[in-house]
Amino acid sequence: MTRVMNFSAGPAALPEEALLRARDELLDWNGTGMSVMEQSHRGKAYEKVHQEAHDLLRKLLGLTADDKRSVIFLQGGATQVFATLAMNFLRAGTSADYVSAGAWGDKALVEAKSYAAMVGASAREVRWEGAEGAGKGTRMPHPRELVFAEDAVFVHTTSNETIHGTQVGLSESLPFADPKQPHVCDMSSDFLGRVIDPRKFSLLYAGAQKNIGPSGVVVLVVDDAFLEASCDDIPSIFRYATHAKNGSLYNTPPTFAIYLVRNVLAWLDAKGGVPAIEKDNRAKAKLVYDAIDESGGFYTCPVEAESRSIMNVVFRLPSEAHEAKFLAASEQAGMVGLKGHRSVGGMRASLYNAVSVAHAKALADLMREHARTSG
Amino acid sequence: MTRVMNFSAGPAALPEEALLRARDELLDWNGTGMSVMEQSHRGKAYEKVHQEAHDLLRKLLGLTADDKRSVIFLQGGATQVFATLAMNFLRAGTSADYVSAGAWGDKALVEAKSYAAMVGASAREVRWEGAEGAGKGTRMPHPRELVFAEDAVFVHTTSNETIHGTQVGLSESLPFADPKQPHVCDMSSDFLGRVIDPRKFSLLYAGAQKNIGPSGVVVLVVDDAFLEASCDDIPSIFRYATHAKNGSLYNTPPTFAIYLVRNVLAWLDAKGGVPAIEKDNRAKAKLVYDAIDESGGFYTCPVEAESRSIMNVVFRLPSEAHEAKFLAASEQAGMVGLKGHRSVGGMRASLYNAVSVAHAKALADLMREHARTSG
Repeated sequence: MTRVMNFSAGPAALPEEALLRARDELLDWNGTGMSVMEQSHRGKAYEKVHQEAHDLLRKLLGLTADDKRSVIFLQGGATQVFATLAMNFLRAGTSADYVSAGAWGDKALVEAKSYAAMVGASAREVRWEGAEGAGKGTRMPHPRELVFAEDAVFVHTTSNETIHGTQVGLSESLPFADPKQPHVCDMSSDFLGRVIDPRKFSLLYAGAQKNIGPSGVVVLVVDDAFLEASCDDIPSIFRYATHAKNGSLYNTPPTFAIYLVRNVLAWLDAKGGVPAIEKDNRAKAKLVYDAIDESGGFYTCPVEAESRSIMNVVFRLPSEAHEAKFLAASEQAGMVGLKGHRSVGGMRASLYNAVSVAHAKALADLMREHARTSG
Repeated sequence: MTRVMNFSAGPAALPEEALLRARDELLDWNGTGMSVMEQSHRGKAYEKVHQEAHDLLRKLLGLTADDKRSVIFLQGGATQVFATLAMNFLRAGTSADYVSAGAWGDKALVEAKSYAAMVGASAREVRWEGAEGAGKGTRMPHPRELVFAEDAVFVHTTSNETIHGTQVGLSESLPFADPKQPHVCDMSSDFLGRVIDPRKFSLLYAGAQKNIGPSGVVVLVVDDAFLEASCDDIPSIFRYATHAKNGSLYNTPPTFAIYLVRNVLAWLDAKGGVPAIEKDNRAKAKLVYDAIDESGGFYTCPVEAESRSIMNVVFRLPSEAHEAKFLAASEQAGMVGLKGHRSVGGMRASLYNAVSVAHAKALADLMREHARTSG
């Protein structure tokens, strides 16, 4: 079995250990004579792995039992959270502030506006220089650029823009400073890829299919006090409070996806947790960015140095013909997923947790060799 | 590897063939050097299996390319459809009719009412004799008992009440007659377990975790003309039209769950499709109901003969002590999942598509033997 080097943006590479564990027990899980996906979600066998996924997540985030925060697993992905976030916290006459630095921030805002219009609330885009025009997507805002409305119910940010390859806060103590309003952050594409302090956020969320599992499950970490203030007159299935109260078992959860998240988190924990993986992630990103910066202009990265993502490295070649040739060479070398998002073109190497330093080095080596022979 | 006899109500038994296929290609799918769950959902490799799942579903339902109906895969389960159904079709001043014969019909109504209240619409329960009181859950209504509001935007029914073990239409040409209003039906627990005519429904839906796959995905089959009439001012992620238009690829779908549905549907297709499995399902149910009816009152089924479900067979023993003893004996015999739902007690044998005739026979044999020795 030859496994490829997978640089896909998500769904993305998973740790081989997590997959092997799933394969070995696919038809007989823990001696139950059933697959984990055939187990009742109310049964003791499944409940154990469900709890373990919750516990590992708290541990990896550094949350103790005393921390009044709930970890929730939901379906629908981050895209659905864009809408349910507004449903849970926006009432008639209230407003929330959205910081957008790219495609995902924009989508979050559009869905919030759509719901806000239904109930007479509003979702407002925070103005800053990089929020529109040619510079959009080339950097994240500096905290000093952002002014939030005093009465905003929450401030929404995106910590890593997957399509543009920008990421916040790597040289700051916190992403987008520390608003006094409740801070809600979409961390889909860098969740558990770097150390953060979850206590600085009222709510953070992440689709699993980048760093922590397969698609089909999204994680929320929410301050219980913030949850107290949520709307109770929306359908139960959309209330975060419903799911927090029921330990993510209000309705049938995506059991196999949560089981796989458990496998991935157990792998991460055994590897030394988030500090250890962040070290690897920084090393991987440096390998690829160095190959870009030392190419004498053959490769270019449109992102300003301070905002360069360690999760998604975007770069261009001199022409689309060069890019097609490079893509073919990468596939020849056993690499997949390097084509940039269709909306921006170019190349993108996603270096999520499950991508090894060796794979990043192989990519950097290929880039150098390719520049030498094709430059 | 000893596989148990799994009578769970859902998540439930899956065909061994579908699981073996998943196991064998878990780390290297179709020679791609990746798991199917590591593939980009926009890539050709995944798109093929995604399309195959849609195509198999149409084929098994007997829908041709000419049928103006869309098959959609969504997240959130049937419980979320309870809410999104109202969001898609209820506007201020409109109302929908709900027929409830049990716990799931009730839940569908409660979620619809909750949303309806938000927008000034209404969800009305259709009155009939078995809708409340002691008889609730012991039978399905007869078509002649139901009168629908002339201006109902749709009529909602539940074809099989999983908890109570009741099912409609087995001796009728259609479930709940044929309302002239658009008919929306929750078929979660008997979908593809019996032959139906999908053209008689404006929308039918089913969580996968009973007959067609793991939890984490729900299927909708919707008349395109009905979809035309849906609300376009709700968040995009909740609009069925968004997902129909994008072939269930508007946002990242639960790729592995859809792949497993494909595996299960391919198994069903090879087995002879729905007519063949319905024959098995009727045979399985007869084995267990006969064991009940021929026990001289040791086992009793509270459900009226005409409404007895072929998917979920509920029965009681003379006392809770007898029930505990029977449960222990069944576990001893390698059977799991026979405990009834906590809200009603007793026993429940779920005989979904993946449960073999041999397993149903083993259960019936055990029941007869147990009655003989413990009766």
